[in-house]
Amino acid sequence: MANIVLSNTNYNVVGTRPIRHDGADKVTGRAKYGADFEMSGMLFGKVLRSPHAHARIKSIDTSAAEALPGVRAVVTGADLPIAAKDNPPLSARAASDNVLAGAKALFRGHPIAGVAADSAHVAEEAAGLIKVEYEVLSASTNVLDAMKDDAELLHEDMTTTEFGEETDKRSNVSNRFVHEQGDVEKAFAEADYVVEREFDTRTVHQGYIEPQNASALWNADGHLTVWTSTQGAFVARDALAGVLEVPVSQIKVVPMEIGGGFGGKIPIYLEPIAALLSKKTGRPVKMQMSRTETFEATGPTAGAHVKVKMGAKKDGTLVAADAVLIYEAGAFPGSSPVSAGAQCVFAPYDLENQRVEGYDVVTNKPRSFAYRAPGAPISAFGGEQVVDELAAKCGMDPLEFRLKNASKEGSRRVDGPQFRVIGNIETLEAARDSDHYKSELSGPNRGRGIASGYWMNIGLASSASISVNADGTIGLVEGSTDIGGSRASIAMQAAEVLGIPAEDVRPQVGDTDSVGYTFLTGGSRTTFATGWAAYECAQEIKTKMINRAGQIWEKDPSEIDLADGIFKHNSDEDLQMSFKELAAQLGRTGGPISAQVSVSPGGEGGAFGTHLVDVEVDPDTGKVDVLRYTVVQDAGKAIHPSYVEGQMQGGAVQGIGWALNEEYFMNDSGDMVNSSFLDYRMPTSLDLPMIDTIIVEKANPGHPYGVRGVGEVPIVPPMAAVANAIHDAIGVRMEQLPMSPGAILEELWEKNGD
Amino acid sequence: MANIVLSNTNYNVVGTRPIRHDGADKVTGRAKYGADFEMSGMLFGKVLRSPHAHARIKSIDTSAAEALPGVRAVVTGADLPIAAKDNPPLSARAASDNVLAGAKALFRGHPIAGVAADSAHVAEEAAGLIKVEYEVLSASTNVLDAMKDDAELLHEDMTTTEFGEETDKRSNVSNRFVHEQGDVEKAFAEADYVVEREFDTRTVHQGYIEPQNASALWNADGHLTVWTSTQGAFVARDALAGVLEVPVSQIKVVPMEIGGGFGGKIPIYLEPIAALLSKKTGRPVKMQMSRTETFEATGPTAGAHVKVKMGAKKDGTLVAADAVLIYEAGAFPGSSPVSAGAQCVFAPYDLENQRVEGYDVVTNKPRSFAYRAPGAPISAFGGEQVVDELAAKCGMDPLEFRLKNASKEGSRRVDGPQFRVIGNIETLEAARDSDHYKSELSGPNRGRGIASGYWMNIGLASSASISVNADGTIGLVEGSTDIGGSRASIAMQAAEVLGIPAEDVRPQVGDTDSVGYTFLTGGSRTTFATGWAAYECAQEIKTKMINRAGQIWEKDPSEIDLADGIFKHNSDEDLQMSFKELAAQLGRTGGPISAQVSVSPGGEGGAFGTHLVDVEVDPDTGKVDVLRYTVVQDAGKAIHPSYVEGQMQGGAVQGIGWALNEEYFMNDSGDMVNSSFLDYRMPTSLDLPMIDTIIVEKANPGHPYGVRGVGEVPIVPPMAAVANAIHDAIGVRMEQLPMSPGAILEELWEKNGD
Repeated sequence: MANIVLSNTNYNVVGTRPIRHDGADKVTGRAKYGADFEMSGMLFGKVLRSPHAHARIKSIDTSAAEALPGVRAVVTGADLPIAAKDNPPLSARAASDNVLAGAKALFRGHPIAGVAADSAHVAEEAAGLIKVEYEVLSASTNVLDAMKDDAELLHEDMTTTEFGEETDKRSNVSNRFVHEQGDVEKAFAEADYVVEREFDTRTVHQGYIEPQNASALWNADGHLTVWTSTQGAFVARDALAGVLEVPVSQIKVVPMEIGGGFGGKIPIYLEPIAALLSKKTGRPVKMQMSRTETFEATGPTAGAHVKVKMGAKKDGTLVAADAVLIYEAGAFPGSSPVSAGAQCVFAPYDLENQRVEGYDVVTNKPRSFAYRAPGAPISAFGGEQVVDELAAKCGMDPLEFRLKNASKEGSRRVDGPQFRVIGNIETLEAARDSDHYKSELSGPNRGRGIASGYWMNIGLASSASISVNADGTIGLVEGSTDIGGSRASIAMQAAEVLGIPAEDVRPQVGDTDSVGYTFLTGGSRTTFATGWAAYECAQEIKTKMINRAGQIWEKDPSEIDLADGIFKHNSDEDLQMSFKELAAQLGRTGGPISAQVSVSPGGEGGAFGTHLVDVEVDPDTGKVDVLRYTVVQDAGKAIHPSYVEGQMQGGAVQGIGWALNEEYFMNDSGDMVNSSFLDYRMPTSLDLPMIDTIIVEKANPGHPYGVRGVGEVPIVPPMAAVANAIHDAIGVRMEQLPMSPGAILEELWEKNGD
Repeated sequence: MANIVLSNTNYNVVGTRPIRHDGADKVTGRAKYGADFEMSGMLFGKVLRSPHAHARIKSIDTSAAEALPGVRAVVTGADLPIAAKDNPPLSARAASDNVLAGAKALFRGHPIAGVAADSAHVAEEAAGLIKVEYEVLSASTNVLDAMKDDAELLHEDMTTTEFGEETDKRSNVSNRFVHEQGDVEKAFAEADYVVEREFDTRTVHQGYIEPQNASALWNADGHLTVWTSTQGAFVARDALAGVLEVPVSQIKVVPMEIGGGFGGKIPIYLEPIAALLSKKTGRPVKMQMSRTETFEATGPTAGAHVKVKMGAKKDGTLVAADAVLIYEAGAFPGSSPVSAGAQCVFAPYDLENQRVEGYDVVTNKPRSFAYRAPGAPISAFGGEQVVDELAAKCGMDPLEFRLKNASKEGSRRVDGPQFRVIGNIETLEAARDSDHYKSELSGPNRGRGIASGYWMNIGLASSASISVNADGTIGLVEGSTDIGGSRASIAMQAAEVLGIPAEDVRPQVGDTDSVGYTFLTGGSRTTFATGWAAYECAQEIKTKMINRAGQIWEKDPSEIDLADGIFKHNSDEDLQMSFKELAAQLGRTGGPISAQVSVSPGGEGGAFGTHLVDVEVDPDTGKVDVLRYTVVQDAGKAIHPSYVEGQMQGGAVQGIGWALNEEYFMNDSGDMVNSSFLDYRMPTSLDLPMIDTIIVEKANPGHPYGVRGVGEVPIVPPMAAVANAIHDAIGVRMEQLPMSPGAILEELWEKNGD
């Protein structure tokens, strides 16, 4: 069942596949999501949104809405603290204006006002009674339009930062930067083959099943409690504190279960509006977005324009690489993932001469936000196609070309850092040795594609607390929202330390008042960093338990060890106690044992994946069928292989959707015209074959169990892999996403001279 | 405002009166009590109860109930694991049978069956359709009847334990024990004055405002979650695990806010029934008792028959004391508080020769359970009246008599232990020096009474966890249900250690999965033991913060101290940082800081109180008016004086109610005929004067801040104090409770020969 290569360490719990602790709750409908929140006296909130993609707000008249029976409060941007400030800095204004518009509406769906009423229907009706006078401005909904000289500026007070310096230039470009290693010009001059292409990608949404929601109660004593489906309760708390100008300790964020996030449930949207409405009414206020609101007014990932140029010697040695990445920030500056896109584009390659130029450009679209490995799939879509083309020019197998040029320990990323121990080569070798790659693919209009991808992964702060139960089980509270099985992967690391089964851990996600600070679930940090917190906390429990055993046996604790769940004295063989036996004695030998630790580990390990895909293109319709798909990825160590495989499969599937179908389809007025799941076409299980997985385990020496982080890498290669497969199948090079039937037909017609 | 004597230590936070952290929630109706629990798909449960005080259950037919539309499940004692066992030990059977009757109904109101239905009304109707065939047996509802030779035995398999040895005697006496110090016979022979009297007290209820409730969800994965207003989530969890035979780690108890407990919310009643109904239906089940059910079927304190004999020398030296305490256990053996009654009766006195004989006797009443200083007020009602009478025989002021004979460090309690540092003498001196005692009382039918009381207080296991917020506040999770302000008193002890204001602590009561084991809120242990856990946890935070300061300053942590909220280097005066400043730096200097500790402290300090009361008796009606009342009590150290005063006032008021009006009024069938708050007369604010308080602070050397525990002592003296005042007013000695108008009139008529 498991397809794992390289693993060379055996553990009792780590690497096994216990049933997840929250499984029964989730499959029986008992888990409490944001929409399940209820409280007596609860009001329902709705948001009035801008119908224009770009408009000055001349006036807002809420009187008719307030007069509607059942309406309890109306709030607008004037209710936010920023409204009282003269010339606030753009960064502060952006955070606040994204919640409720200030002077301008910057995208269609931009929140203008919030209404709380006795029912959601009354609130919605009241929102429709608010009269807003707009001065409509021309809108730019892609980076190339927004960068035109005559483009309407979104932010009159925004100047362009260039190469780290603030300039006095005024345009929709908020930031322009360059990373460079070696001498790129010279290296290109020495290359035998150079390939250069331009690519366009569209805005796509994370497409999580559960729309955004938030419920809030602003209590009479000034304490605000917010219940929300969030990827990070503490991060949401900090953001609320900033926008509402309330100390963090006055805010408690209770993380509800979350129906997917993929980066999109990090920012706050409804939370501050619900809070303000609660403050005005003294009652709890619950808000939920529709799917259309989720599309129009939460943070999708950027559309982009990308140029990639790479050069190689005849022998297949890559000598130079250059990229220009122009990413949409959406409505507010600095929001595009161009920085990570730059770090990742050439990371799979050992390049002495490389350069990336990045642009962050504001457009009249919702503020861009993180979507799984944010920025990397966009640049990889270009980079990995150019690599493919260059390999062909060198007459080399694309996988062998990648292996020959693979980055390794000591290779330098374009932005400077040198790689520590990485599993890039091992991943490529596992792909090369896979059944899939060794299989023959035949038949007309069929082709095979390969692409690699990289994500750096992160560490940062996490906390966990453990208390030992009298029956030898432990309670574990951790601060990370569980999106994809992290209760299990964190619990397992504690269980491993203590020599108890995973089932003997009762993990629970704490709210911001009940566990130490924990950064968000994202960046592929959760199993790495919160797992580490659980590991350290378990070590502290182990020490306390050994001390207790020493006290009971009247022996020095240094003579006692815990192995495989048994406390043993190192010389007296009669002195043995299981974890359960000792736990049962705690009450009468000095009391219970518990501990809490916070960690902020460095040592996160970047990870690589290589994807193989076979496709068949229907030349009559342009439709692409995915015939076979294999994800090969270095997990460092797969704590719970099933969830690692699930991440690899899920990332690949999202990438395939992005490759073939998904896009924000914008009309000339700046409206997204496909803002429902009927029109925004995400792949279903019927569209895809089983996604095969091969987990490579090149242990990360920076983590106790070698964990790297696995959630993001698998969405990086798919678009390029599919594009390369399409090229292999029908000989056309796809420079635009999505590679929809229509787009493929156009390329085919052009190729065939139709 | 504060009337505090002896306090000689000054703290920044301890001893101040901040607003309680849960105050706003509670006064605005936002706090979530058990009755506020809601969950989608919730069913409502009701209990069918025995109409007979003593009956054999011949058959139960639930078919008609099950057939009623809307009924989802019916459970009976047969659904409890005990039903499958042959001859289970009586203790296990008692725990189970108290939840749902087995072979016999042992008191009126004994649960026979539980019903879950779509509404509470349907459940109630269905309960009425259950057909139970009873063989009615004769019932004993007081100890003297139950001890008669021809009394019907409640438990055929129960034998009497005598003086620690099990005998083969079969009666309703479950246990008989003796404690003796010195040679009591000889001492009585040498006494100049001997007083001997017999007393009767009635069953009384704690009378908490919120009736019992429980909601349960037994999940598909076998995990049971119970939401309940309980004095101890962990204790409830352990009890559920026992009755349901499920490991503790499969059960999570979520403590809801609690509307009073006073000992009565320690046991489980509805919890296992709701759990069984949830297991059968797969749905959450909510149950609540009516006031009548609360009276009839929860654990009131024992009625009792008490004999006290004491002897003194002419000079006022107490030389001998003897007591016989016969307490009701109610339906199940070992449940009476006679053991504590024995420990406390003579504790205020330094006695070389003392003896107490105790009886635990089963009766056809609900199982007795703890009520504030359980057992002590009953024995003190007798003991303190006999002391009063003896003082008079010696011609001494009753307060001086108590002072002359007061127990002190080294005095021995009748059951053996010697007192450590205690404040008995200081409390009596404070009473003697009080305005109240120095004031003159004049007028006909007016009298002044005095009585002392003692409670041992307890320690045991508690846990607390702390995490430091970036704004310099801390989150505190503790395992103790907050009945009377313990969030504040626990938070303040952590704040004191860290040099931050009480308001900068955000205390929260954790459920059994989110904090270390914590014994119940009761025994006057919470501020002592959980406060100590918070103190120790804060010490660990302090150490970690000092280490961090050392790291930032590049100094050895041993050179840094924290005083008044400022971290200071001991030689470099430039190196200073406030707690807030350091907290703000944690994120970028190694990550957040948190800790959790569990403690199980010994060192609890017994405490004494002396009450003064002035009454006026209406000779025509027998009604007693309390004119003035002062509680003097040793708190050790009052962490939050307002809540200490509140405990002292509340205990006194409950004692006054017990003294003058409260009783389970039983008819010959064994029914309580006054099971509503209309007929069960508890004092209201209109019945009483302001209760004055004097806090004595004789620090307990066994606690970091000198805390003793304050909740229970104040209910010990009132009945005796009022009885002594009545005697002073009208010259009759009240040997029965309640001292209701009718009872007083009868005594007056007897005295006057009417």
